[in-house]
Amino acid sequence: MHTKFSDWDDTIAAIATPPGIGAIGVLRVSGEHAFEIVQKLFPSKKLKEQPPNTLHVGYLKDGENLLDEVVVSLFKKPASYTGEDIIEISCHGSPYLQQQVLNALIKNGARLARAGEFTQRAFLNKKLDLTQAESVADLIASNTKASQNAALKNMRGGFSNVLSGLREELVKFSSLIELELDFGEEDVEFADRHQFSLLIKNIDVTVNKLLESFKLGNVIKNGVSVAIVGKPNAGKSTLLNTLLNENRAIVSEIAGTTRDTIEELINIRGILFRLIDTAGIRDHSLDVIENMGVKKSKEKIEQADIVLYLFDINEMSAEELLETVASLKNQNPNVIAIANKSDIFNQGLHIQSVNELFISAKEKTGIEELKNILFAMAGGASLNNENVIVTNARHYAALEEISKSLQDIKTGLSSKISGDLLSIDINRCLHFIGEISGQVTNEDRLDFIFSKFCIGK
Amino acid sequence: MHTKFSDWDDTIAAIATPPGIGAIGVLRVSGEHAFEIVQKLFPSKKLKEQPPNTLHVGYLKDGENLLDEVVVSLFKKPASYTGEDIIEISCHGSPYLQQQVLNALIKNGARLARAGEFTQRAFLNKKLDLTQAESVADLIASNTKASQNAALKNMRGGFSNVLSGLREELVKFSSLIELELDFGEEDVEFADRHQFSLLIKNIDVTVNKLLESFKLGNVIKNGVSVAIVGKPNAGKSTLLNTLLNENRAIVSEIAGTTRDTIEELINIRGILFRLIDTAGIRDHSLDVIENMGVKKSKEKIEQADIVLYLFDINEMSAEELLETVASLKNQNPNVIAIANKSDIFNQGLHIQSVNELFISAKEKTGIEELKNILFAMAGGASLNNENVIVTNARHYAALEEISKSLQDIKTGLSSKISGDLLSIDINRCLHFIGEISGQVTNEDRLDFIFSKFCIGK
Repeated sequence: MHTKFSDWDDTIAAIATPPGIGAIGVLRVSGEHAFEIVQKLFPSKKLKEQPPNTLHVGYLKDGENLLDEVVVSLFKKPASYTGEDIIEISCHGSPYLQQQVLNALIKNGARLARAGEFTQRAFLNKKLDLTQAESVADLIASNTKASQNAALKNMRGGFSNVLSGLREELVKFSSLIELELDFGEEDVEFADRHQFSLLIKNIDVTVNKLLESFKLGNVIKNGVSVAIVGKPNAGKSTLLNTLLNENRAIVSEIAGTTRDTIEELINIRGILFRLIDTAGIRDHSLDVIENMGVKKSKEKIEQADIVLYLFDINEMSAEELLETVASLKNQNPNVIAIANKSDIFNQGLHIQSVNELFISAKEKTGIEELKNILFAMAGGASLNNENVIVTNARHYAALEEISKSLQDIKTGLSSKISGDLLSIDINRCLHFIGEISGQVTNEDRLDFIFSKFCIGK
Repeated sequence: MHTKFSDWDDTIAAIATPPGIGAIGVLRVSGEHAFEIVQKLFPSKKLKEQPPNTLHVGYLKDGENLLDEVVVSLFKKPASYTGEDIIEISCHGSPYLQQQVLNALIKNGARLARAGEFTQRAFLNKKLDLTQAESVADLIASNTKASQNAALKNMRGGFSNVLSGLREELVKFSSLIELELDFGEEDVEFADRHQFSLLIKNIDVTVNKLLESFKLGNVIKNGVSVAIVGKPNAGKSTLLNTLLNENRAIVSEIAGTTRDTIEELINIRGILFRLIDTAGIRDHSLDVIENMGVKKSKEKIEQADIVLYLFDINEMSAEELLETVASLKNQNPNVIAIANKSDIFNQGLHIQSVNELFISAKEKTGIEELKNILFAMAGGASLNNENVIVTNARHYAALEEISKSLQDIKTGLSSKISGDLLSIDINRCLHFIGEISGQVTNEDRLDFIFSKFCIGK
């Protein structure tokens, strides 16, 4: 447990809004001296005498140097995000100007905040536990309804509540067992082993559910990669366009995220699919490039979560289809075969063992079915139930450790090991539960977790 | 004058912070129904019953759909930026999430704000005049101390005050002259022509000062382009690095602005210089590219505000130097000849007529002198006086019209034209003064001016 944090008495400052030009930019100052420091720059009002949660317009001045006309928001401890005094300064949205204001704050005694330090302080001041703090970063990174919901649920304590429930029950048993140890040789059993064994089973079921939910959690957080393969004339681009066009509004909302990739993003009922068109790679004519292309295509197929194999139903023999699908399934088991150009299809080709989906990318038929299949394959069905979903790899790793120690406890119980040995396993289990919620963790680890946040949060 | 504005009764909403991921994002809602609309999404408190200028934490919900935990800032009319009711919503900095909040606001009755519409409403509600409104956009775009100061000065009414002073005096005379006209044939002169002639002279001096200030204003707003030319081994890159290194901190502050150009920016005492290295262009070996390069170099030299001609003093004959400088001055009169590598210079080469500056880019000698020369050539000397500086091309154009009408008035006075003809010229002069401050202007023109603002301002 932390009672003291390095540089804890510092007052920290950072630009909290995204970099770049906007209408407004917001700087955030938190700590013991937030009011004093901002007061030096904001001469028109006595800030400390103002009530908390109020807004004040005035000029910001660095000595004689006028910086900007700003609005300051006052939050007083402990009723603030960090649990400390906080002042937010809303200034005009020039990056240069914001930098000037930040420099002035630092000149007057603030320290530049590290990434995630505001939230780290909130955690250390017990305004939120570690999973809630982590969900703040997830919420900021969220780009679909599903990732937003999962983050909000955890921010409001969903995951924490499940964990603290488990923890409480375990602690009760743990203390009973430790009481037995106090009695030393007397061979008493305060802790009912049968009851305990039932409890462990229950906890195990919950932990397994959480572990399972990570598959969906990962999908929610990172999206699903879909490689689209097929011959040049199979209609890959038309399919891609059909899928994208129907989702244009949603795609444009997250346009900033696609800039540096060759992938296209579509959002199907809250899950993000990254469509990887392998077409361009294969269309080069030079041998070297063709070889590189084939190698890259193979990699993409192997790494993808789902492979869409698109073929022109009018140009495909049953043999070739069976052979290609089998070869693809060798590389990746999650293959969907899609018979395109079904609008001009006039002779029967239907291979039961391939189980292909008939579509016309051009006429936009079968697209809704395709989306349903993609959504189902990503585990979308369990998206809307109220269960907590684990989206964080750190939590998943700790849950695996919890699961292991639960197995050890089970084994121990069935082989009737002594209370002191049992106690070790229980404590290990409690340790990993505490690591998730942040009750047990060291400062370096905390610094690492929060360093992945953005500055200003 | 405007009393009614199209869509005036609408409530408008926009994301006010820059696009991209940050710790927080701020949405702004302004208009008659701002409180009602946000109230539908913010169930935990009765917003209308809260005092103005207060902050409230709560969940934002679109029906059953939880959007985010937010802080709302309440501003009530007329004491707000736009003069209308304003609510600012500070949410987590996910672009997706901000878009969801914006969608919810629009679903509940807000309209997406046009670029600059918040400031346009502030103007129409007489919270600021047109030059002040325009300086808000300038402040947001400011990237040096000088541009920040010029914008702040105008935002606080510097330019407006000068103009309204001129206007008042002119209006006084204008009404006296119009009084004469009421007396028709009676040949009275209420307006003392001699006094008026003195006034016109005074106004003319002020207007000319403002017109002259635009040269510096333009420098402040757009920076100064400096083409660096010289042979491959003259030390151009070293000079560029020396200039950049000393300014690294300042340059990195404005790094975002340099991304898409091949120019390097340095900030010398508040003025931005864009250094254009023509070196790269000349180093290609292919003939076509070389020719293109020479053509491009020539263009850059002609278009630059200043040309730095850098030569290795150890490798330069007096004849070649004279010839090159003369040829460059033919293309651009503002040439500075810089004798580099003066650290290893051992024989006298000093051409009085060229007046070169001796530096060593490597040893960093002479660099301060170079900066002084650049600063002086950009007109930096008049930067720190308290005069109003015109930075806006629209204002400059109107000032030129004012100047023309002042000449007409002068001519009219000296040829003793009748009061009614004089009155026409005076009204034309008043019209253009009014156009700058926005007292006289039409809605289309206003829309055009504000359309260059960012959304959310």
